[in-house]
Amino acid sequence: MIFTGSHILSIAQFDRADIQRIFEVADAMAPYALRRRVTRVLEGAILGNMFFEPSTRTRISFGCAFNLLGGEVRETTGFESSAITKGESLYDTARVLSGFSDVICMRHPQEGSVAEFADASRVPVLNGGDGANEHPSQALLDLYTIRKELASKGREIDGLRIALIGDLKYGRTVHSLCKLLSLFKNIHITLVSPVELAMPESIVEQMREAGHTVVVTDDLPQSISSVDIAYSTRIQEERFATKEEADMYRGRFRLNQAIYTQYCEPNTVIMHPLPRDSRAGANELDNDLNHNPNLAIFRQADNGVLVRMALFALVLDVVDQVDKYARDVNWYNSARTL
Amino acid sequence: MIFTGSHILSIAQFDRADIQRIFEVADAMAPYALRRRVTRVLEGAILGNMFFEPSTRTRISFGCAFNLLGGEVRETTGFESSAITKGESLYDTARVLSGFSDVICMRHPQEGSVAEFADASRVPVLNGGDGANEHPSQALLDLYTIRKELASKGREIDGLRIALIGDLKYGRTVHSLCKLLSLFKNIHITLVSPVELAMPESIVEQMREAGHTVVVTDDLPQSISSVDIAYSTRIQEERFATKEEADMYRGRFRLNQAIYTQYCEPNTVIMHPLPRDSRAGANELDNDLNHNPNLAIFRQADNGVLVRMALFALVLDVVDQVDKYARDVNWYNSARTL
Amino acid sequence: MIFTGSHILSIAQFDRADIQRIFEVADAMAPYALRRRVTRVLEGAILGNMFFEPSTRTRISFGCAFNLLGGEVRETTGFESSAITKGESLYDTARVLSGFSDVICMRHPQEGSVAEFADASRVPVLNGGDGANEHPSQALLDLYTIRKELASKGREIDGLRIALIGDLKYGRTVHSLCKLLSLFKNIHITLVSPVELAMPESIVEQMREAGHTVVVTDDLPQSISSVDIAYSTRIQEERFATKEEADMYRGRFRLNQAIYTQYCEPNTVIMHPLPRDSRAGANELDNDLNHNPNLAIFRQADNGVLVRMALFALVLDVVDQVDKYARDVNWYNSARTL
Repeated sequence: MIFTGSHILSIAQFDRADIQRIFEVADAMAPYALRRRVTRVLEGAILGNMFFEPSTRTRISFGCAFNLLGGEVRETTGFESSAITKGESLYDTARVLSGFSDVICMRHPQEGSVAEFADASRVPVLNGGDGANEHPSQALLDLYTIRKELASKGREIDGLRIALIGDLKYGRTVHSLCKLLSLFKNIHITLVSPVELAMPESIVEQMREAGHTVVVTDDLPQSISSVDIAYSTRIQEERFATKEEADMYRGRFRLNQAIYTQYCEPNTVIMHPLPRDSRAGANELDNDLNHNPNLAIFRQADNGVLVRMALFALVLDVVDQVDKYARDVNWYNSARTL
Repeated sequence: MIFTGSHILSIAQFDRADIQRIFEVADAMAPYALRRRVTRVLEGAILGNMFFEPSTRTRISFGCAFNLLGGEVRETTGFESSAITKGESLYDTARVLSGFSDVICMRHPQEGSVAEFADASRVPVLNGGDGANEHPSQALLDLYTIRKELASKGREIDGLRIALIGDLKYGRTVHSLCKLLSLFKNIHITLVSPVELAMPESIVEQMREAGHTVVVTDDLPQSISSVDIAYSTRIQEERFATKEEADMYRGRFRLNQAIYTQYCEPNTVIMHPLPRDSRAGANELDNDLNHNPNLAIFRQADNGVLVRMALFALVLDVVDQVDKYARDVNWYNSARTL
Repeated sequence: MIFTGSHILSIAQFDRADIQRIFEVADAMAPYALRRRVTRVLEGAILGNMFFEPSTRTRISFGCAFNLLGGEVRETTGFESSAITKGESLYDTARVLSGFSDVICMRHPQEGSVAEFADASRVPVLNGGDGANEHPSQALLDLYTIRKELASKGREIDGLRIALIGDLKYGRTVHSLCKLLSLFKNIHITLVSPVELAMPESIVEQMREAGHTVVVTDDLPQSISSVDIAYSTRIQEERFATKEEADMYRGRFRLNQAIYTQYCEPNTVIMHPLPRDSRAGANELDNDLNHNPNLAIFRQADNGVLVRMALFALVLDVVDQVDKYARDVNWYNSARTL
């Protein structure tokens, strides 16, 4: 695809070369995200960060990514202050807000709303999540994390062995990740969930058509015994008839350090889309994993900034100018290591 | 008036030369609003964007205008987080907030509150709307749009023919616009509304005293048949005893492409203060006008940024320095054309 | 203490030399706070301004302070948009948000929460108030104000005579101020409150152990008759059984211009942590004091920006670079005088 001036609405837009390009640019953003250098390439540019549904971490991640390129952020959080409640159409909102901004990131609770908004926008729109539909930057940061974790072991995405664990029926994140993985070769994917929360058949089919091996199971220990990545997601209480039933299932798909040590290969990487529920009885990833160096869940969040910087730089066509407007910085260097 | 250090509270502050000055400066802001150039003339300056009543588009428009001059924006949206709810006086709030900012934009639901706030402020205050009272930047952007639309036809504001349509009794926007028009010459103004929602007599008087021709009617087709501008406003349901009565009136003052084609002179410009209600049965400007090039409603919003940049540059006295701190920019050039 | 990279969680962290250092740096920030100069020393740095409890003035003060050093601010206001409500631990929130920011300011309703957050953060955390526990930057700005007001009379903090008036039992501000004062010498402190709202005995003890003179009284006129500073705080209705009882007490501890003139030494400085309740019957400092030049309550708020700039510059280790990235500015010079 041609990135310049494009909307980023769905992972279906990308082919393998596009993914490769996004990840190359994300790699190049590391000195800026690490605060070794600072750039003002987007000085004077404005991100319209339009969150018509709350999502603190995604909103702030997009905002930081734009700031790190030198741009300014104007934003809204929630419907309460919106003309939409007065009967304004998404068309009108898009025409007005795109007159203020150079690029817009939008989250909205309604499926398809971001695409409708983008149709009327005069500037590129990045989908920050539209209901149960798409959240493309999350899928990209997950795959980017997988690539980086594998690269540190001299491996590539092709040939990946991954277990997806938990609510595979409703989890937007794991659906998108599977679709992205279908662009790669020779993946061995294990789907671990209660029967009631199984991965939709259409996605399983897509994976198999891509030539991947798909195993469906509800046996957690076995499923994580020979994978590179164990990707856990939340099992939500409201998916079950009773709390007792939910607790029973959650107990069976919970990962902690003891299980990890007993069953996983050394250096199996643990991922999760976050937020992770840390309340007793609801936690799918136990806090005793927090000091396991293979817990990559916070590296995922860190990588999100890189991926979003890459998307902004690509759609605004400033990739080649980032360094030109840069200088080294000298303030307190945080302990952050991507 | 002397702009430097002044509050902008009411359109009554301006004479014709002031309007002329604001519009000249707004014209000079175009390269920056169009992102052909970027300036850091207000680098390090802070706008206190204090919205004690929600208004996404006005808040973001002011914020963008300040960012485009190189300044930073700190803001609040709504009362929930405000010391005012703990019994703090506007005097105290103003004294404190004006210690943080270089200029303040304030919206507040209560008439006169912004002027009271400005009295105590140590920095210039721009009225972003105080209840039913004033919203001067909206009136300025409306008149600036009229001037630009006419200029593209080689015309001036003097001699303008305009129809104001809809709720003329409660519409703060049309009241302010009439007052501004009374500074000009030889205007032909047609007031089109239900009798219940007629323009206040005092404003009609002011227009006539200025030597303008004022026609009052409730016949939409005739009223828009020989005007330069058809300025539509919302007829709100709550102004009438029953929904049926409201619907009847709304039906009579609704403009769509068929009516436009049948009755209007070629290139009659359509304006609206926005937001426009797009719900079926409530829409005063039909969506089938969206591709009519004379629909100027989004150009109004775009012009708002220029006018607000001009107000900031004037009250902070940086008009002559904008270019000095500027450079060209090279990012993706949006399709935006002012 | 070593400031670089440190969290600022409690005034108990500081010894007298630390206070001295913070105040020296705050003094050096004056040209920037006064907008005589602007610096971009923190260009590209991001403050995560995390207000999980509303506090407009503190939030904006921190944000302005960071902007005045050239940095950008990303923020959240309230719990509504937070993953914390989905069961996320403070540990996870801290790990994620500290990946986005260079420094975090956090307010949270729960005692100890900011310290817990800081434990997991990868960047310095400044406590913006954690429930009834601590609000260290408020205590610092109070003491900095006392120092400045005394300095204008050729005096130092050692030897200070101060009256603390109002709710001394629940007032976080006066507790912290007393603790800071215990680092100095020869203070004469008068505690003026209803018996029900007396200063906790442990703090009185700490003051006496520091060698200070502590007088406890409920006689306002006498207590303010020979002090340098009269520091008033709010008496809240909900502390008493009935509104009548509250009103009786409030009446006895209310300061106005007549009482000031009759009882105070010339140039006695009046302070208050703000917000001040200005509703009739509830106002502890009458509005008729507003033009008394010794009313320092707004200078306190102004000084807050200086103190917060100093804290940011110290923990990020840029004190010596502020001038290097600075230039003079030429926009409208506000009437602000620190």
